[in-house]
Amino acid sequence: MLHPLRIAAVGLGRLGRLHAENLAFHILGVELAAVCSVVLDEVLEARKALGNPAGFMKFDEMLARCPLDAVVLTTPSSLHAGQIEAALNAGLHVFCEKPLATTMAECERAATAVARHPHRVFMLGFMRRYDPSYVFAKQQIDAGAIGRPILFRGYSVDPLSAIEDALKYAPHSAGQFLDMAVHDIDLARWLLKSEPREVYATGGCYAYEEFAKYGDGDNVAALMPFENGAMAFFFAGRTAPHGYNIETEIIGTKAALRINAVPARNRVEILDAGGVRQTCDQHFIDRFGDAYRNELVEFVACIRKERQPEITVADGVAATRIALAATEAFREGGVVGIRD
Amino acid sequence: MLHPLRIAAVGLGRLGRLHAENLAFHILGVELAAVCSVVLDEVLEARKALGNPAGFMKFDEMLARCPLDAVVLTTPSSLHAGQIEAALNAGLHVFCEKPLATTMAECERAATAVARHPHRVFMLGFMRRYDPSYVFAKQQIDAGAIGRPILFRGYSVDPLSAIEDALKYAPHSAGQFLDMAVHDIDLARWLLKSEPREVYATGGCYAYEEFAKYGDGDNVAALMPFENGAMAFFFAGRTAPHGYNIETEIIGTKAALRINAVPARNRVEILDAGGVRQTCDQHFIDRFGDAYRNELVEFVACIRKERQPEITVADGVAATRIALAATEAFREGGVVGIRD
Amino acid sequence: MLHPLRIAAVGLGRLGRLHAENLAFHILGVELAAVCSVVLDEVLEARKALGNPAGFMKFDEMLARCPLDAVVLTTPSSLHAGQIEAALNAGLHVFCEKPLATTMAECERAATAVARHPHRVFMLGFMRRYDPSYVFAKQQIDAGAIGRPILFRGYSVDPLSAIEDALKYAPHSAGQFLDMAVHDIDLARWLLKSEPREVYATGGCYAYEEFAKYGDGDNVAALMPFENGAMAFFFAGRTAPHGYNIETEIIGTKAALRINAVPARNRVEILDAGGVRQTCDQHFIDRFGDAYRNELVEFVACIRKERQPEITVADGVAATRIALAATEAFREGGVVGIRD
Amino acid sequence: MLHPLRIAAVGLGRLGRLHAENLAFHILGVELAAVCSVVLDEVLEARKALGNPAGFMKFDEMLARCPLDAVVLTTPSSLHAGQIEAALNAGLHVFCEKPLATTMAECERAATAVARHPHRVFMLGFMRRYDPSYVFAKQQIDAGAIGRPILFRGYSVDPLSAIEDALKYAPHSAGQFLDMAVHDIDLARWLLKSEPREVYATGGCYAYEEFAKYGDGDNVAALMPFENGAMAFFFAGRTAPHGYNIETEIIGTKAALRINAVPARNRVEILDAGGVRQTCDQHFIDRFGDAYRNELVEFVACIRKERQPEITVADGVAATRIALAATEAFREGGVVGIRD
Repeated sequence: MLHPLRIAAVGLGRLGRLHAENLAFHILGVELAAVCSVVLDEVLEARKALGNPAGFMKFDEMLARCPLDAVVLTTPSSLHAGQIEAALNAGLHVFCEKPLATTMAECERAATAVARHPHRVFMLGFMRRYDPSYVFAKQQIDAGAIGRPILFRGYSVDPLSAIEDALKYAPHSAGQFLDMAVHDIDLARWLLKSEPREVYATGGCYAYEEFAKYGDGDNVAALMPFENGAMAFFFAGRTAPHGYNIETEIIGTKAALRINAVPARNRVEILDAGGVRQTCDQHFIDRFGDAYRNELVEFVACIRKERQPEITVADGVAATRIALAATEAFREGGVVGIRD
Repeated sequence: MLHPLRIAAVGLGRLGRLHAENLAFHILGVELAAVCSVVLDEVLEARKALGNPAGFMKFDEMLARCPLDAVVLTTPSSLHAGQIEAALNAGLHVFCEKPLATTMAECERAATAVARHPHRVFMLGFMRRYDPSYVFAKQQIDAGAIGRPILFRGYSVDPLSAIEDALKYAPHSAGQFLDMAVHDIDLARWLLKSEPREVYATGGCYAYEEFAKYGDGDNVAALMPFENGAMAFFFAGRTAPHGYNIETEIIGTKAALRINAVPARNRVEILDAGGVRQTCDQHFIDRFGDAYRNELVEFVACIRKERQPEITVADGVAATRIALAATEAFREGGVVGIRD
Repeated sequence: MLHPLRIAAVGLGRLGRLHAENLAFHILGVELAAVCSVVLDEVLEARKALGNPAGFMKFDEMLARCPLDAVVLTTPSSLHAGQIEAALNAGLHVFCEKPLATTMAECERAATAVARHPHRVFMLGFMRRYDPSYVFAKQQIDAGAIGRPILFRGYSVDPLSAIEDALKYAPHSAGQFLDMAVHDIDLARWLLKSEPREVYATGGCYAYEEFAKYGDGDNVAALMPFENGAMAFFFAGRTAPHGYNIETEIIGTKAALRINAVPARNRVEILDAGGVRQTCDQHFIDRFGDAYRNELVEFVACIRKERQPEITVADGVAATRIALAATEAFREGGVVGIRD
Repeated sequence: MLHPLRIAAVGLGRLGRLHAENLAFHILGVELAAVCSVVLDEVLEARKALGNPAGFMKFDEMLARCPLDAVVLTTPSSLHAGQIEAALNAGLHVFCEKPLATTMAECERAATAVARHPHRVFMLGFMRRYDPSYVFAKQQIDAGAIGRPILFRGYSVDPLSAIEDALKYAPHSAGQFLDMAVHDIDLARWLLKSEPREVYATGGCYAYEEFAKYGDGDNVAALMPFENGAMAFFFAGRTAPHGYNIETEIIGTKAALRINAVPARNRVEILDAGGVRQTCDQHFIDRFGDAYRNELVEFVACIRKERQPEITVADGVAATRIALAATEAFREGGVVGIRD
């Protein structure tokens, strides 16, 4: 039997806590060696519930004092680059939640750090690539089933039922293109195998004027032509009436694929006075619970087998660059070119 | 141009009125020559709205006095046999609503009359055979697409939204097997190309005890093995929560077909706090409007081309025999054999 | 009984022939008085099949010699303005297929003619407004069910199975925004109750390079912000793998509506080795047969009741203006303003 | 931290192996202490892959020599009663796969053993009760959402793609009512909260005559009235054309619930020349992977908290009694009473 990998979960918000739980119980060959959060209660709760890992409130102190093999970063995006750098310099493998960073300078800083440590595994949390439905779609596309891709359409809309959380988080958000659409941007690049040339964006505050204060809308959209001629349409928002609405479509010359057109919570249809309906997922963990686990399994496999994951730091740099261009197009109007 | 066929609409309830309107306006080569109903107001309204055809309150008087080529009977089932006989004897073609009759004696009377007039067209109103979805299913089955048929499942359930009408009609109903399931019985015979051997039935009054007074339930079911080994399951009722629920499934060794699993009112999906839903048809005319027209088009074509329709009087006799056996099984318990 | 309206069907291609047949047989109070086409065989066939109306190969000759109340124009778009003018000057009511015209000058010519004849009914063939599903959606929206509209998404894609026809027609096409997306442009204006401010478009030839010769693509897309803040995304094409794909979505702050996400040919699901599927409509008449009839019923009702239809010539002018702006954006790149 | 429960996985066929893997890696507070199979290779493979638990080929030897807290039995049904008895007598908690046993005598033997050990947890593997969709349905029903239950419909049909396995297994099968429909029988009792009074059954060999040798069919059906008046229709088979087809419907006076009408493999729709389709699950583990884990989590929770699970040995006795009655009705014809 192999020595278990000692991994720290850094950041213990809802998603960070899930990663910590997966590391503690559901990923083979792993030991949740430490948890780290600036919120003391989160540290205490996690230690109690997750088998008593070491607890820290300061990232640097954890690196200095706790023997670790890897870190899983679910911290605010503005901290990513520095923490990636520090962890790699400390000899650790790094899994980092998306987005890589919210400025190009920070992205470059992270990319440079990763380039300097080619023998450390670096992986970014574009978990959709590890969701069974997207894996299936990717296989179909790679096998030529859809022919030449024409249009990618990606919707990422948080449920109206979660609007209170979204409003609280608004001041810390980098805007919807970076927060929400960045997943679709990654999917589009992955599925279209090409890069966008330029972007036109629009949107606004349709129900919650508060987002305007931060240069954001509650719903935004963008259209981008890609180098290979394919088109991509992105819609991101905070007010999906029915649930956590992650819908993706890719239309090709031979076939089209549609993923999650109905974000059904389960396999039950209800037939009543309102008609025939399915109730819907209300939270990203309901939809992507398996994907969040699968990506950590892959991260661990990469460490064990000394290989790099499919998702590289360059994917993170590109996604942020594109999301920033879309944000600029949304704020300033007009068409914004996307250059490497 | 051909001389228009002079057709009388007999019975002007909701379905009779629809037949009359189709004859008046929507079937080529036809003239609505007369309307007949024991309800004076119905006669007056139809004359006014449908181009002033002759109006009668007595069937025999109409036959005696009005020059006609054919009659369309939408009268109480207990009158069918006598009216079929009288109309055929008067030299007319006859279209008769289902069921043919509610007793075997009356069925035989009708069948004998039809047999005596081989040059008159006789057609029974099993309109589902003229609905585009059932036509498609029949073609698939006849082409061998489903392989050998294993199970026919037929649901015919009136919507809860129409329960008031059902309760009013209850004293005149011949029971749900004859009133509702008779359509499914015809479909099963048509699609399975075989006859049932015996029947076991059950059911009861789940919401409306009133139906028990008439030896009926508000929801009933029956299971029948067929001569060719196939099985048929029938469910008929009055309380479908979501709408007019005519669902049919035929499972074969190579494929299965499911018809109208969601009785959608239109092509709209509503995404709201309740989930993702489609609203449903609430009335048989919403579902089968086209089929009701198509069957009259076929009736007229048979007259013009001097051929008999696919649906014969024998289909009506068989459907009533089977429905009566199911009714007996429901009332008496145990298994009831079905013999020619 | 009223004197039947004498209506001429002008243009006898597939849709023109359908209008002629509806006028001949399926619209009450109407007489198909004449048919007119530059193709002699079409005139002869229509006369024979549709009850021997008068036949013409020249529009002006028909106006001069045939007593008429109205014309239904299904002619090439470049002829619309002149024919509208001539027919109105001849005292006739006019129903004209979309688009109103393919240049703004021609649109103005038509609008001026219509303005000069306020007592003649003028109606444009945006038949989707008369499709039961769109009628339902409009009612929901007008009743406030979706809250404030955020995003309109309209797909209008001809089936790959009809590509041969599309290639033949390509030299005469005004491009996909005017040919296909014009219906979605009308829907967006109708459902959003606002006008677009500007347009960004992209697309190309993904499977059939031939369309490039005509400054067109085989698939194109456009994104438009509207005056009221709502967004509209349009996708039009010629290569839908599964069928005639007219899908519309309107997302609001309270609910979203999705129309025809699966363009099912009928109510049958097929369960076989490939999974569970529905087969799809392959032709616009399969999808919109009822709407084509309903719009003519409305046209006739407007004439009878001396009122104007909801769809005015201004709707035709606006739709062409917007489609032309989208075409320019597609051809030239960048953002194109849309001004009255 | 609690001492981990030492559990043995007995029987290492496909499902037994899954239970073993869940015990080894995915259930907190558990140690896979031993594996036991009469197939040496299975023991060796499991020991190697699952963390080197003790390995046995004889159940009694394992009980005698290996310190254990509980066993999970996935052995042939004919061995269940004896193994349950032996394990309980050895002081162990017992989880046993369905069916409890294939004869009433064996059922009684198991029930007696369980009754004699009230402080040992005994649980039967009706895993569907732990599937999220069924849990949701149960909650809806218990909350009164469907009103009074009218009809339960349960389909359990193995996929045609697995027919080779089914044919190999046929000589050991207790027939489809015990092998397949027993799950639906349990669901019906659970959801209807009542017991069936009698059963009528039919069916046959539609594609694979081999099953007749064992008094079985490749597809069978049964109809049962329940004490509370509700009806239940069961369909079990081996030849579902599209996939592993576990579909359940429960129709009430206020609403109906339909579970898994499309056994979709994932959230992808494919739009191609065949129409719009979803591919389907081909294996019970694809469909019920989570439920198999959840039930073991519950088993462990019962042991820890010293309570009994919802599923009792009486549920196993009842399900076998009903399945045997259905089998008799299928083989002998007529109606078979079901008595306690």
